[in-house]
Amino acid sequence: MDKKLTDVAAGRVKADLVIKNAFVADVFNGRFIRGDVAVCGERIAGFGEYSGVEEIDGTDKYVMPSFYDTHLHFESVMIRPSEYLKLAVPRGVTAFNADPHEIANVAGETGIKFMLDEVKDIPADVYFMMPSCVPSAAEDHSGCVLDAADVKRISQKLGLFGLGEVMNFPAVINADPDMFGKLDALEIKDGHAPSLSGNALNAYLSARILTDHECADVDEVLEKVSKGMYVMLREGSQTKNLKSLIGAVNKTNLRRFIFCTDDRNVEDLFELGTIKNNVRLAVECGMSPIDAITIASLNAFEAYGIKYHGAIAPGYSADFLLCSDDAARNIERVYYRGGLVAKDGKPLFDVTGKTADASALKGSVRIKPVTESDFVLPYKKGMPIMRVFPNTVVTECVEAAGKTADGLDLMCCIERHDASGDMGKCYVDGIGLKGGAVAQTVGHDAHNITVLGDNARDMKLAVDSLGADGGLTLVKNGKLIGKLPLEIAGLMTAMPAERALQTRKELLAALDGMDYNKRIEPFMLLSFLTLIVIPDVKLNHKGLFSVSKWKYLYN
Amino acid sequence: MDKKLTDVAAGRVKADLVIKNAFVADVFNGRFIRGDVAVCGERIAGFGEYSGVEEIDGTDKYVMPSFYDTHLHFESVMIRPSEYLKLAVPRGVTAFNADPHEIANVAGETGIKFMLDEVKDIPADVYFMMPSCVPSAAEDHSGCVLDAADVKRISQKLGLFGLGEVMNFPAVINADPDMFGKLDALEIKDGHAPSLSGNALNAYLSARILTDHECADVDEVLEKVSKGMYVMLREGSQTKNLKSLIGAVNKTNLRRFIFCTDDRNVEDLFELGTIKNNVRLAVECGMSPIDAITIASLNAFEAYGIKYHGAIAPGYSADFLLCSDDAARNIERVYYRGGLVAKDGKPLFDVTGKTADASALKGSVRIKPVTESDFVLPYKKGMPIMRVFPNTVVTECVEAAGKTADGLDLMCCIERHDASGDMGKCYVDGIGLKGGAVAQTVGHDAHNITVLGDNARDMKLAVDSLGADGGLTLVKNGKLIGKLPLEIAGLMTAMPAERALQTRKELLAALDGMDYNKRIEPFMLLSFLTLIVIPDVKLNHKGLFSVSKWKYLYN
Repeated sequence: MDKKLTDVAAGRVKADLVIKNAFVADVFNGRFIRGDVAVCGERIAGFGEYSGVEEIDGTDKYVMPSFYDTHLHFESVMIRPSEYLKLAVPRGVTAFNADPHEIANVAGETGIKFMLDEVKDIPADVYFMMPSCVPSAAEDHSGCVLDAADVKRISQKLGLFGLGEVMNFPAVINADPDMFGKLDALEIKDGHAPSLSGNALNAYLSARILTDHECADVDEVLEKVSKGMYVMLREGSQTKNLKSLIGAVNKTNLRRFIFCTDDRNVEDLFELGTIKNNVRLAVECGMSPIDAITIASLNAFEAYGIKYHGAIAPGYSADFLLCSDDAARNIERVYYRGGLVAKDGKPLFDVTGKTADASALKGSVRIKPVTESDFVLPYKKGMPIMRVFPNTVVTECVEAAGKTADGLDLMCCIERHDASGDMGKCYVDGIGLKGGAVAQTVGHDAHNITVLGDNARDMKLAVDSLGADGGLTLVKNGKLIGKLPLEIAGLMTAMPAERALQTRKELLAALDGMDYNKRIEPFMLLSFLTLIVIPDVKLNHKGLFSVSKWKYLYN
Repeated sequence: MDKKLTDVAAGRVKADLVIKNAFVADVFNGRFIRGDVAVCGERIAGFGEYSGVEEIDGTDKYVMPSFYDTHLHFESVMIRPSEYLKLAVPRGVTAFNADPHEIANVAGETGIKFMLDEVKDIPADVYFMMPSCVPSAAEDHSGCVLDAADVKRISQKLGLFGLGEVMNFPAVINADPDMFGKLDALEIKDGHAPSLSGNALNAYLSARILTDHECADVDEVLEKVSKGMYVMLREGSQTKNLKSLIGAVNKTNLRRFIFCTDDRNVEDLFELGTIKNNVRLAVECGMSPIDAITIASLNAFEAYGIKYHGAIAPGYSADFLLCSDDAARNIERVYYRGGLVAKDGKPLFDVTGKTADASALKGSVRIKPVTESDFVLPYKKGMPIMRVFPNTVVTECVEAAGKTADGLDLMCCIERHDASGDMGKCYVDGIGLKGGAVAQTVGHDAHNITVLGDNARDMKLAVDSLGADGGLTLVKNGKLIGKLPLEIAGLMTAMPAERALQTRKELLAALDGMDYNKRIEPFMLLSFLTLIVIPDVKLNHKGLFSVSKWKYLYN
């Protein structure tokens, strides 16, 4: 008990801070109530009539709980976690479930530990999940293998919050002993179960997996909700599900929905923010602002059993936003544990000089040297190739139709952790990049090198230009015309966010000068074309792999 | 992880039990879905299409989670807890929050321990709360005083679930150190805060008190919900709030409501059951059956943070009902942890010979012998007296209007734990018992002797007839015409429920032959007329006490 809190709540002692005369979100009843919000230390003392040592005029403004991004990978934004939070917190999010799945696939425990160290001085609650699938499938060659014993040891040692998205759903359904060991290690478990339904879904849920962020349509959502899952309405930069799923939400099942971003690129992080973008879209789809805010706050904390967070109520953690509107379009102030941490979109905390030591994560790219002759694949009409589409990471397997490979790109996946020389190749239809190549060390989930182009010379140069640290490279007609270095595990840049944004903009501008299908962003899409847990065909370091048949089509 | 559960869920192995082709409650989406429910061991494997070692035809029947009574005092029913559960479980409840507040006020830790021992072999989840207010006010003389150190010690020693209803709200609001010590002892805390609102309510909730079951109207409910409380829609035998509060429930805030009974008499327990009666009334008030069932199950488990209970979903505890209708009017079967524990209203478990040792709780009535001259109070026109009303335990303080005491009854409260001889007296308007007296050792919360009558001779006889063990007695014109012995702490009978019911019926039949206001049940009402935490005037062993003024009017 905190005597001062009770004294403040009772009105006997002045509050540390009062937001006067605001519209206060009542996420329990789904309404706004006019009143004063009193804060004492790290908690909300109450709302009603109060005076405070510090008073902020809230007239015509809105106080609401700050938001919780229930599933994200910091690595996706390609900047350091501290830099990510410098941007995400002022945009209204003070709680995060971070799954360091990508860096764990490159650098195991060292990588996970780095992520924790990065955020420890940031005013936000970051709940780290233990990556469950390193590698995501036995077929992959990642930088690390974490079995059940590792999962248990690391999660206990580092005090992790739960088990990260369990994407190897066949292992769960088939009662794989190592997977069962992982599931036993942590009580909270996030899911990843695209298209799973019926008895297979029941088997997956017998493991008490809590959430899913991979639903494709309303029927899938309703079934998953009916079986006890919390369904994430995900709105990332690459994967955008909110609009196609929100039709499943009604007043009765609203409590079972939460918001996440999963992935975010740096441009969207700057311009759209993260969960406020989910709120905005939900409201555009016709949801009331207070319902969208409830999903963004109370629901998320309830889902994960985090008590006394996510509402403006006595005794609750004083994590809240002061907005000029009822849907967090304009966030004027962000409070975390009673302290003002951001104002008018700018952080009031400085991450400079507080970042974790990344030296062990540099020079992570280890490959056997490549020659131009490596970037050749004999073409045959009728051979299986990969067809890609805008706005989805799902691919199709089709038969090559042309007499030659004209109009197709060659894609290669080069193992980059142990310099094995392994290299998978296939043709890709749908991007049509001409006179150049793109290469990168970001390639879910093993993060080997992916390179795509229409000629061997440019593809070799793109790969060579990645260097020992890795990154994104762009080559046009024999010349490197753009690069974003990703020195930290080949996944994140050491630059501050602002410079990373500028560098990425220059890279994308250079890309824009090239000839390809402009409805697709090749760097983002390529990073998912190696992910063999998403249908239908993907390319790894061994060859073209059919996810639906779970076998190589050629290697 | 449980491999067999996953195997069953996946359909690879036959379930232990399947309810075939039933309407299955989907409390997450608020609907019924037709399907088979598969059970493996103590858990639900899934619903869909299944075959089982045992199969029950569920065609045209309804499967729903069994219910959770979130607040009750076993003592109120005046039978042993094992006998209570023998009746309550077949009527659809398999989880109970029991607050042994009454027996703790008589016998402290010994009493609490007895209650735990009573239920340990019963197929139900009984979560015991640690009584927070023994005595409920410093003005009372109960059989025991439990301070913060006792609360901490006993709750840890006995592994209690939470802190029982914190009814001494002034102590919380005023930051009383002993109360703060109690509030610190347990994380889960039930509330009891009639009419509390505004900053006083905020101060009460700064202690993170979770629930309230004392709301009087819709506005009070909405404020309490807005401040984070779960509001109990209570429907007991004496206190009935559901109909007056249900107007506050809407689709948005439904998740914040739970059901409880608080008190129950044995007739209602037999005839109406407990939480199924709340469900019935809610449906009569226009709520959909599935919403009422959700309040009775999922909401309650969510409120108390008990995971994987309260729904028919994979991995959930297999506690469920098979009903012939959608609102649990007719419960055919009750399953607890996958086992059939009741059928057609009859328990399949036997409590005979499994009850706890009650010998230490017998002979609990210790009073200084009384004479007829003790049962006299000089009458003066204008003196403050207590006015009582049907269907409420709230009283009014009025001035005596008549020239004589004609038409009024005399009530006395005799301290019965330490034979101190203390005895409070007042006149009562509203019952009008003539030519006799009632006496009892049940009197919230100190459980001193309460006796009411219109003449000293009958009042003395009623008290003497209680004996050393206590109970309820009824005297008419100098003759004991009815008695229910309550040998266990003067609160509960040692009889089986069926005989207790019969004895109570005989007692009430005898009462019916007397002349009094038949809209009031004197035994039940009297048990609350000594409770000085309920407004407006009550009588304790020291005299007539004004709750609103917090002082004796005379003693």
